[in-house]
Amino acid sequence: MASDERGERAGRPGRAEPYTLASLVEVAAQAFNERGYDATSMEDLSRAAGITKSSFYHHVSGKEALLRAALDRALDGLFGVLAEPAAVTGAPVDRLRHIVRRQVEVLATELPYVTLLLRLRGNTETERWALARRREFDQAVAGLVAEVRDDVDPVVAARLLSGTVNSLIEWYRPGRMPVADLVEAVDRQVFEGLLR
Amino acid sequence: MASDERGERAGRPGRAEPYTLASLVEVAAQAFNERGYDATSMEDLSRAAGITKSSFYHHVSGKEALLRAALDRALDGLFGVLAEPAAVTGAPVDRLRHIVRRQVEVLATELPYVTLLLRLRGNTETERWALARRREFDQAVAGLVAEVRDDVDPVVAARLLSGTVNSLIEWYRPGRMPVADLVEAVDRQVFEGLLR
Repeated sequence: MASDERGERAGRPGRAEPYTLASLVEVAAQAFNERGYDATSMEDLSRAAGITKSSFYHHVSGKEALLRAALDRALDGLFGVLAEPAAVTGAPVDRLRHIVRRQVEVLATELPYVTLLLRLRGNTETERWALARRREFDQAVAGLVAEVRDDVDPVVAARLLSGTVNSLIEWYRPGRMPVADLVEAVDRQVFEGLLR
Repeated sequence: MASDERGERAGRPGRAEPYTLASLVEVAAQAFNERGYDATSMEDLSRAAGITKSSFYHHVSGKEALLRAALDRALDGLFGVLAEPAAVTGAPVDRLRHIVRRQVEVLATELPYVTLLLRLRGNTETERWALARRREFDQAVAGLVAEVRDDVDPVVAARLLSGTVNSLIEWYRPGRMPVADLVEAVDRQVFEGLLR
């Protein structure tokens, strides 16, 4: 049976809205964030997407594939930043500053996916894989922090830095403020501190 | 029936270890943090404390009373800081600095209770009460941040500040480093920033 890339939402005849794999992954990420991965069934996801369960299975093999796709999106965003020219060449402090600013942008624009990544518990193979990738990212940042400051404990400083940046998922919502302003606010606080 | 302030742990005859209300609250806070409040039964708590369920009920009326006592301990610590002389008199920047340093100490020394407070979802009356108290604390800090910096969005700055401090619960564990060093590290990063 051929799987369609687009289709109509079940139960809403006359209001044909297309859905794609990306939109199903988005629905899944939101559901996982709200109820937790373990507590969410494919039944729940089909209902949230407004399509039948069998249409859903045309697009993905199951729940874990959706989790993987959602986490991939967050990790691709973060590791994409580490590979940018401004992240790999130049003075360590400028590279670190570029990474932090771009990390904030990725958090703000890929919010449901990064939220999912940051709240993982590590109960499944896919979750443990993603947690290992996340540690890899954190270690790359910690390495740069160590190059920028040799007078502080770089592990602690890097943890505080990632704590500051990652705390955005607790209160930032799209439209809350322009992403550029958010980037400036984090950059200032992290690099210049609260003292004038 | 008179309730004893101390007793023997069930099933461990010959190894009499005293338990008190405070130690039962500690056991409860740890269990709530590990499994979640909703998923933890009085049965689970009695087992974790190593006493019988009926002994447990001599000390507390039930699960919600334990939650309340654990959250009280965190909130008493935090609000106690706001009432300290150095938090209420002096230049705003010095008051803020005192509060942040003492907040780190409370987090480090009352870790299971503050962790419980910071992970609340707000499903019960007690949880909603504690969340309201937590917002009150955050607003007091935000008010001071606004006095210290009039060139940044004080709400965003205060949220980033509390994000930095509260992220400690994710990685700090007793004995990981001296509390005084942790206080210095947070103070430096928050007030002076990563730039030299």
